[in-house]
Amino acid sequence: MSQDGRKQKAATDLRTLLRLPRGEQIDLAAYDTRAVPAGPGGKSAGRAATARLGKRLAGLQERLWAAGLTGDRRRVLLVLQGMDTSGKGGTIKHVVGLLNPAGCRVMGFRAPTPEEREHHFLWRIERELPRPGELGAFDRSHYEDVLVPRVRALVPRDEIERRYDEINRFEQRLVDDRITVVKCFLHISYEEQRRRLLRRLDRPDKRWKFSPGDIDDRALWPAYQEAYEIALHRCSTPYAPWYVIPADRKWYRDWAVARLLLEHLHALDPRYPEPDYDLEECRERLLKGA
Amino acid sequence: MSQDGRKQKAATDLRTLLRLPRGEQIDLAAYDTRAVPAGPGGKSAGRAATARLGKRLAGLQERLWAAGLTGDRRRVLLVLQGMDTSGKGGTIKHVVGLLNPAGCRVMGFRAPTPEEREHHFLWRIERELPRPGELGAFDRSHYEDVLVPRVRALVPRDEIERRYDEINRFEQRLVDDRITVVKCFLHISYEEQRRRLLRRLDRPDKRWKFSPGDIDDRALWPAYQEAYEIALHRCSTPYAPWYVIPADRKWYRDWAVARLLLEHLHALDPRYPEPDYDLEECRERLLKGA
Repeated sequence: MSQDGRKQKAATDLRTLLRLPRGEQIDLAAYDTRAVPAGPGGKSAGRAATARLGKRLAGLQERLWAAGLTGDRRRVLLVLQGMDTSGKGGTIKHVVGLLNPAGCRVMGFRAPTPEEREHHFLWRIERELPRPGELGAFDRSHYEDVLVPRVRALVPRDEIERRYDEINRFEQRLVDDRITVVKCFLHISYEEQRRRLLRRLDRPDKRWKFSPGDIDDRALWPAYQEAYEIALHRCSTPYAPWYVIPADRKWYRDWAVARLLLEHLHALDPRYPEPDYDLEECRERLLKGA
Repeated sequence: MSQDGRKQKAATDLRTLLRLPRGEQIDLAAYDTRAVPAGPGGKSAGRAATARLGKRLAGLQERLWAAGLTGDRRRVLLVLQGMDTSGKGGTIKHVVGLLNPAGCRVMGFRAPTPEEREHHFLWRIERELPRPGELGAFDRSHYEDVLVPRVRALVPRDEIERRYDEINRFEQRLVDDRITVVKCFLHISYEEQRRRLLRRLDRPDKRWKFSPGDIDDRALWPAYQEAYEIALHRCSTPYAPWYVIPADRKWYRDWAVARLLLEHLHALDPRYPEPDYDLEECRERLLKGA
C-alpha cells in the first residue's frame, strides 16, 4: 500500500477522526452537529452501509461470544450519553439491534432509586457490566452523576470534582479487566432538539417518550453543555477516550456508532476457540451410528 | 364472519394447535418433528413471513415497554427447552433478534455454579425474570432441574417429584404477577440431531458449539425423551401450558415461535400510556421559543 493509501485509511478510522482531542478545553458549540465526517453519501446510502456493517459486527460478536465461553474475558461496553432526544435509545435499537441478543446486555439508567442512592454512585454501574464475551450497552451511565448533580447543584462541588477521578480510576479497572470501553457522546443542536420534541408531541406513538420536564430542561441547555464539556474533558483518557458523534442526522449517528464498534471489535480480533477434541473421531462415532 | 371463517381462524391459532393436550400421558415419538402445522408453504415463504411477524412483534413490544414505564407490570417470558442442537440459541438469534434489545432480557442457563448450587434451584431463575414491560427469553431454564438430575439420577426421585409441584406453584406466582409465560419445547428427531452435530463438526465457525459429551448424551436419548414427557405432562398447566414446536425445519421453528409470541402479545393488547400533560400547551411553549 502506498503511503497515501495508508494516510487515507488512517483518516477514515473513526477512532481517530471522532476521538476527543486530549488535553484541550472543549467547546461543544464548535462541533458541527450536522457533520458527516467520513460518512456515506446520504441517508439511504448510510442506512445500507449500516446494515452491511451490522453483518460484520454480528460475525465478530459471535466470535467474541464463543471465545468468552472458553475463558477469554474480553468484552465491550458501549456507553451512550447525550441530551434528551439525542438518540441514545435509537442507537441501541438500530445498532445493538443488529446483533445477537444472546450476547448483548443492555441497560438504561434512570434517576437513581432509593436503594441505589444508599450506595456509591458506581455501585449500580458495576452490577450491569457486560460479562466475558458480551457486548454491553448503557443508555445513560455513571456520567449522569457528574451532569445532573452539577447542573442542579444537588451535590457539593468538591464531591463532583472527586467523582471525575473516581470515574477515571473505575474505567481504568474495567480496561485492566479486559473491557473495551467505547464512550459516545451523541451531539445534537438546540434547534434539532426542539424539532424532535415537537415530533414526539405530534406522533401518538412517540408521546410516551415526552415529559414537560424536557422543555424545562432546555432552559438549562448551556449549563448542561458546560457540564458535558467538563466531564468529557476530565474523563477522556488514553484507555477510555470519548468520541463525539455528530447526531443531528440519525443515519449518520447509527453508521458512526456501528463503525466505531466494528473498529474496536476488529482490533480485538476475537477467535473461535480451537476444538479441544478429536474432530475425526467424533465424526466417525456419529457416522457409525452413535 | 361466517361460522366456517371463525373455525378456520381458530384452527390457525397456534396457541390451540401446538398446545400440549391436557391430562394425557405424552408420547413424544408420536409428534412429527418435520410437521409444519398452519405454517407458510416452505422455507423462503416461511423466512419472509417471520420477517413480517417481526415488524408486528416489534410494534407490540414497544407498546408493552412504554406501558411498563408507567406502571403496567405486564411482561412476557419465553422459555425455550429442547435437546442439544434443537435450536434454542437459533430461535433467540432469529426471533428475539427481531425486537428492540432495550426491552429484551436474554438468559442462557448452564450447569449450575457452586454458588447457585447452594440455593434452591429456582433462586437463579427468579433473579433473571423479565422486569415490567420486558420480554425475557430463557435458553434452558428451571426445567433443566427435572431433566438432567432425573436422567443421571443426581437427585433422589422424591426430590424430583417435589420439583414438578414447586415449578407449577412458581409459575402460578409469575402469572399472578402479570408475567405471560410462553413455554416452547423445540422437538427434533434423533436423526436430525445427528445431522446437526455433524454439521457443527464440519463448519469451523460451528465447532465451538460442539462437545464430545453431546455424542455421549445421545445414548441417553430415550431417557431424556421420557424425562421431557413427564416434565411436559406434569407442568403443562392452564395458566402456563407447554407448546410442542416441530423443530426439524428451522424456518418453521422460528416462524412458529414468532407467531406464538405475537398471539400472546396481541392478547395482552398493550397500550401506549396516555399523555398526562397538556399537549397543546407543550407544543406552544416549544413553538414560542422554549
